[in-house]
Amino acid sequence: MSYQIAIIGAGLIGRAWAISFARAGNIVKIFDPNKDAISSSLKVIKNALKDLEKNDFLYSQTIDDVLNRITIEDTLENALKGTEYVQESSPEDLKIKKSVFKQLDEIAESKTILASSSSAFVPSTFSKDLTGRNRCLVAHPINPPYLIPAVELCPAPWTDQNVMNKTHKIMKEAGHTPILMTKELDGFIMNRLQGALLQEAFRLVDNGYASVEDIDRGISEGLSLRWSFMGPFETIDLNAPNGVRDYIEKYGDIYARMGPDFAKPINMAGPVIDDVEDQRRKIINKQQLKERQAWRDRRLMALAVHKKQSDKQFGK
Amino acid sequence: MSYQIAIIGAGLIGRAWAISFARAGNIVKIFDPNKDAISSSLKVIKNALKDLEKNDFLYSQTIDDVLNRITIEDTLENALKGTEYVQESSPEDLKIKKSVFKQLDEIAESKTILASSSSAFVPSTFSKDLTGRNRCLVAHPINPPYLIPAVELCPAPWTDQNVMNKTHKIMKEAGHTPILMTKELDGFIMNRLQGALLQEAFRLVDNGYASVEDIDRGISEGLSLRWSFMGPFETIDLNAPNGVRDYIEKYGDIYARMGPDFAKPINMAGPVIDDVEDQRRKIINKQQLKERQAWRDRRLMALAVHKKQSDKQFGK
Repeated sequence: MSYQIAIIGAGLIGRAWAISFARAGNIVKIFDPNKDAISSSLKVIKNALKDLEKNDFLYSQTIDDVLNRITIEDTLENALKGTEYVQESSPEDLKIKKSVFKQLDEIAESKTILASSSSAFVPSTFSKDLTGRNRCLVAHPINPPYLIPAVELCPAPWTDQNVMNKTHKIMKEAGHTPILMTKELDGFIMNRLQGALLQEAFRLVDNGYASVEDIDRGISEGLSLRWSFMGPFETIDLNAPNGVRDYIEKYGDIYARMGPDFAKPINMAGPVIDDVEDQRRKIINKQQLKERQAWRDRRLMALAVHKKQSDKQFGK
Repeated sequence: MSYQIAIIGAGLIGRAWAISFARAGNIVKIFDPNKDAISSSLKVIKNALKDLEKNDFLYSQTIDDVLNRITIEDTLENALKGTEYVQESSPEDLKIKKSVFKQLDEIAESKTILASSSSAFVPSTFSKDLTGRNRCLVAHPINPPYLIPAVELCPAPWTDQNVMNKTHKIMKEAGHTPILMTKELDGFIMNRLQGALLQEAFRLVDNGYASVEDIDRGISEGLSLRWSFMGPFETIDLNAPNGVRDYIEKYGDIYARMGPDFAKPINMAGPVIDDVEDQRRKIINKQQLKERQAWRDRRLMALAVHKKQSDKQFGK
């Protein structure tokens, strides 16, 4: 099915959403109060589409097929007219979020779903005083959403179940993998898991057990190989002859012993960040960061191609 | 360079090490006091080699090239004669480890390095009373080591630096990615990172925020895509325009707010395991686990092929 979707905010995340939704056949209208941001956004989108086409990520469509579904709108009113779903991607500032959602709620037709890309704010914080608060949620992607399928859907206590269901449907139809939360939680799911892992990684560096580079290798050449197609629960479910209960009976003690250490506070912005920054800058200096980001995106694309092939060949 | 290596213990891990070392050109001698285990091991190794050959993971060698470097020895004495490096992979039982290491230390020539595959015991626990305790360490792999490069090298307080260096060299030359620890720590590096992530994942299920399947998808279709070729530090280093310090300045607060929650104890063997087991068994029943493990190994192999190609094409 095809939906009419409004992208509010034409920054990095907003543009990436526009690509993802338009590629899936949706009609996409972009609005940003910042005229500079919006004037360059179509060019940036076109460049990204070229890369996607090369790797067969436009699914046999041409660049123009996708571009023709995207329009830039001059006013918020025009962007919202007839829209079924809004993906808001304005700056991560609660005041801005509140003000944008107030406008969205006032202008958008009552059937329109209002979703925020926020990674920092749970939906209750910016929707609680709105008349239409039951149509608000967070749909938080990992950047860039046109290459990374996961998007977490987080409801406020008052979000309508139909709103969650329809958002789930729109995301699935756009090729995303929705992670459905039952209630809101600071950090949602993915940043909580990342936070738990990062805090332990910083702790290991802080206590001098291994280098930043070696810890990265322990993940990139170790744990994450299995996680990248199964996730952590299936990994341990398959790591003992009789499944996950068997695994926890066998190895739960090892992890239980770590609990008290995980409870020790670690300030990632404290002295350890000097050490981490130092070690990273010896591997890649500041001038090389941009080039390395381009490398990351090429590798992400190649990995996405591989996963698509492997899903087909071996099953998901 | 080629080394003479003894594999003590012909179980799942020992056999996998034999493949990895022999494939790299080393002479491998296997010993296991259990005659049944040892009689079947060559057949199992041969089957694994067939799979590896199909995927060009024997690096232009034939199955026989590799097999010819592996011999089964009748006695521990014969296995250890002339050996430069021992990879011990006996059952995870401290009494057994202690007794095996006592024998190894008594019989092996003084130049021989004694490494354990243990995931449960730091090296001081089984080496402290040995004359040759300065040549003992843990070299802990992720299974199977012939597909997953990472292996963590953990010294006891008395382990000789030359022993660590030479083990590092032997591992690198065998195609492994050694993770060098500076001092021992329960859980080493990888299981600590896995433990931190798993405890939060179990906590999220226990508190009903999302399903086991959706949490897995948040990793396999989200976070782990980047981790699988960069690791967590490089991921955040590239996720802010000015690198990791910039990232922590921007997003550190989000993670800092989670600290008190990560400190809450979670018993993974408590009521939550019933829920996790239930959810997993609805996705895959017990009878299907073995078939799914074979699927995992095929996907791991395909991923390893992809990573090798991507390293070549885009750089590591």
